[in-house]
Amino acid sequence: MTNHIRINGERLWAGIMEMAKIGATANGGSHRLTLSDEDKVARDLFASWCAEAGLSLTIDEMGDMFARRAGGDSDRAPVGMGSHLDTQPFGGRFDGVFGVLAGLEVIRTLNDHGVQTIAPLEVVNWTNEEGARFAPAMLASGVYAGVFELGWAQSRRAVDTGAALLSELKRIGYHGDQPVHDHDFAAFFECHIEQGPILDSAGIAVGVVNAAQGFRWYDITLEGFASHTGSTPMKGRRNALLGMASVVQAVDDIAHEQAPLARGTVGSQIEVGPGSRNVIPGLVKFTVDMRHPSADTLAAMDSSLRAVCEEVAADIGLELSLEQISYTAPVAFDEDCVTAVKRACEELDISHTLITSGAGHDACYIADRCPTAMLFAPCKDGISHHESESAEPEDLEAVGNALLHAVLEVAGVA
Amino acid sequence: MTNHIRINGERLWAGIMEMAKIGATANGGSHRLTLSDEDKVARDLFASWCAEAGLSLTIDEMGDMFARRAGGDSDRAPVGMGSHLDTQPFGGRFDGVFGVLAGLEVIRTLNDHGVQTIAPLEVVNWTNEEGARFAPAMLASGVYAGVFELGWAQSRRAVDTGAALLSELKRIGYHGDQPVHDHDFAAFFECHIEQGPILDSAGIAVGVVNAAQGFRWYDITLEGFASHTGSTPMKGRRNALLGMASVVQAVDDIAHEQAPLARGTVGSQIEVGPGSRNVIPGLVKFTVDMRHPSADTLAAMDSSLRAVCEEVAADIGLELSLEQISYTAPVAFDEDCVTAVKRACEELDISHTLITSGAGHDACYIADRCPTAMLFAPCKDGISHHESESAEPEDLEAVGNALLHAVLEVAGVA
Repeated sequence: MTNHIRINGERLWAGIMEMAKIGATANGGSHRLTLSDEDKVARDLFASWCAEAGLSLTIDEMGDMFARRAGGDSDRAPVGMGSHLDTQPFGGRFDGVFGVLAGLEVIRTLNDHGVQTIAPLEVVNWTNEEGARFAPAMLASGVYAGVFELGWAQSRRAVDTGAALLSELKRIGYHGDQPVHDHDFAAFFECHIEQGPILDSAGIAVGVVNAAQGFRWYDITLEGFASHTGSTPMKGRRNALLGMASVVQAVDDIAHEQAPLARGTVGSQIEVGPGSRNVIPGLVKFTVDMRHPSADTLAAMDSSLRAVCEEVAADIGLELSLEQISYTAPVAFDEDCVTAVKRACEELDISHTLITSGAGHDACYIADRCPTAMLFAPCKDGISHHESESAEPEDLEAVGNALLHAVLEVAGVA
Repeated sequence: MTNHIRINGERLWAGIMEMAKIGATANGGSHRLTLSDEDKVARDLFASWCAEAGLSLTIDEMGDMFARRAGGDSDRAPVGMGSHLDTQPFGGRFDGVFGVLAGLEVIRTLNDHGVQTIAPLEVVNWTNEEGARFAPAMLASGVYAGVFELGWAQSRRAVDTGAALLSELKRIGYHGDQPVHDHDFAAFFECHIEQGPILDSAGIAVGVVNAAQGFRWYDITLEGFASHTGSTPMKGRRNALLGMASVVQAVDDIAHEQAPLARGTVGSQIEVGPGSRNVIPGLVKFTVDMRHPSADTLAAMDSSLRAVCEEVAADIGLELSLEQISYTAPVAFDEDCVTAVKRACEELDISHTLITSGAGHDACYIADRCPTAMLFAPCKDGISHHESESAEPEDLEAVGNALLHAVLEVAGVA
């Protein structure tokens, strides 16, 4: 009965372009930091669209916006769709926005066709996904999942003005009274651009995200001995940079050994001392980032890293300090939600593939509270968090249609 | 007839310790920057000691001090001995000072024993060897050798006050009228601490320096592509840091292949961008320092470096920029002067070895003008340019005695 329904891709695209005017940057990106004046304008615009679509808006104590369309059975928990409207300082037009407006487009489409779902539907805008103005990222969805305390989250301070999150919520008029935790979903779907090159290079329209990488972050210091590059013989040097070079290569090797899912990187945040071209590096400080969707494999990668660092330090005579500064467990998205998305793609004959999310998303926290899945759209060359971030209208339309039919399956048609 | 003469090691040591009181630092080092108030006090003290020893002092347009003891044949060019009295901002007590005061001690010893040489003798204090207050290093000896123009050198500005070298020379009363170039030596000997660990670890008293390393300095940039550490697959990454890691290892290998004389180092002055732990390094800028006493071997090392960089860049898909920013030719010290030092060590039964200087010294420039050699004394653990720089009195005495007898051979006894 609803098999023939399709979203309006042009309307979806026009909405994204309209939203992109708020905080537009010179190079075609978006500057819409959490709870800034631009964020307020974006929220107001989104709220006005929701009102036009006949939705009722609730705002919680973290400023999360829930726009609800009644279902045939008002006792049932709603099916949620959404993402975030905030951006990086020089972010793109699609990251987050696409997920919110895809949810809104699903509802507009159902309105157009007079389709009533059994469960209510909600479009959600989560506060502060980016973490650019208030650290850490995914702050409100983290409070929702119980990872962060509400009071702690509300007291986080803006990196630009130093204002507390709570006072900024009040300043722009988005401090709601609904308790953050008092909100259940029957299921939640987040559409997002991939932020990686896999779909774009393979020419696939929809990534059916069945897992998110777990990751481990490390701070590593190697200390040797700084001395003159000319008068110090090669033999007996304790060159800390030579140690780092071995670890850089080893981290890459460790990830390649667990191809294609693993990632391993010494990041671009590095200190080398004492800072002179004719002094042998006596000290290096660097970071390691390792990811895998299996906690066991990630633990094995951790062991390999520790072994390599100890071996390298012993070989060259370096002092090693290795600290794991954070661990994020892998997320396995809900099998039924994933299957619903997959089936929608099959029935609509949309090219699709299972994919693992390499980055964190609100959905990763929400998955702790309810059955959840994500849908990825390709983005050009995998570039994101950059003004040049780009996506194709037909890909976003395909993802929107997959979302529509997955939601119809989960929510049920009255 | 003069074989039995020995210097007074205690007097030499006492002089060094007296000089170290001028600009003494909290941690036992010296702070006596070129043409500073401390440098003036040190120069005045040295001049007073020279006067006490009956020497006549000449000062040239660069503030170089020449303290002369007449010879039996006043038509002959003098045999010079010396080094420099300026220090690094937090330098040691021996670097430079030892070479000047060893020369003075030789003359005091000859005075004590009433020995007259045929050629005149001169003790020299070269201005601004360190280059710490006025860049570049070895400025006055470089003018003497014709490497730098006098006017250019006199207009160099102090990094602390911005004052020109000429005005600082005048301010402290050390702007002489003798033209820098109008000064010939029959031969020149510079005593210095090794500033490396070879003599100290081998327990050898005198390094007979027969060569100084040539060196090549490079600036290298590798540019890849910065992207997300989580969402970017390992395959197809263009990780600039991985390229640098290979070059760091290769530079070490290239130097080890030419053991024991070669040196090869990626220095401790490194930039990695964009500077985030979860972004793959897209850009690295680093330096390479390669040294060898043979120009041909150094050229071969240069070829190896270039080949490795090109190969690494091609393998990973990086843009390579490699610029050789300076080349200093190797110095072969004068065979007769080296032999004179070696013979003096043999006759005095002092442990000695041929050694190559890895660092630059005034003697490297002076070698362009006259037969020259250097004598190295061990310094503890090879540490120099540091307040903890340390040497043993008996080693300095041994080097002083080798200097005495080498000078007697070259100058001749009347």
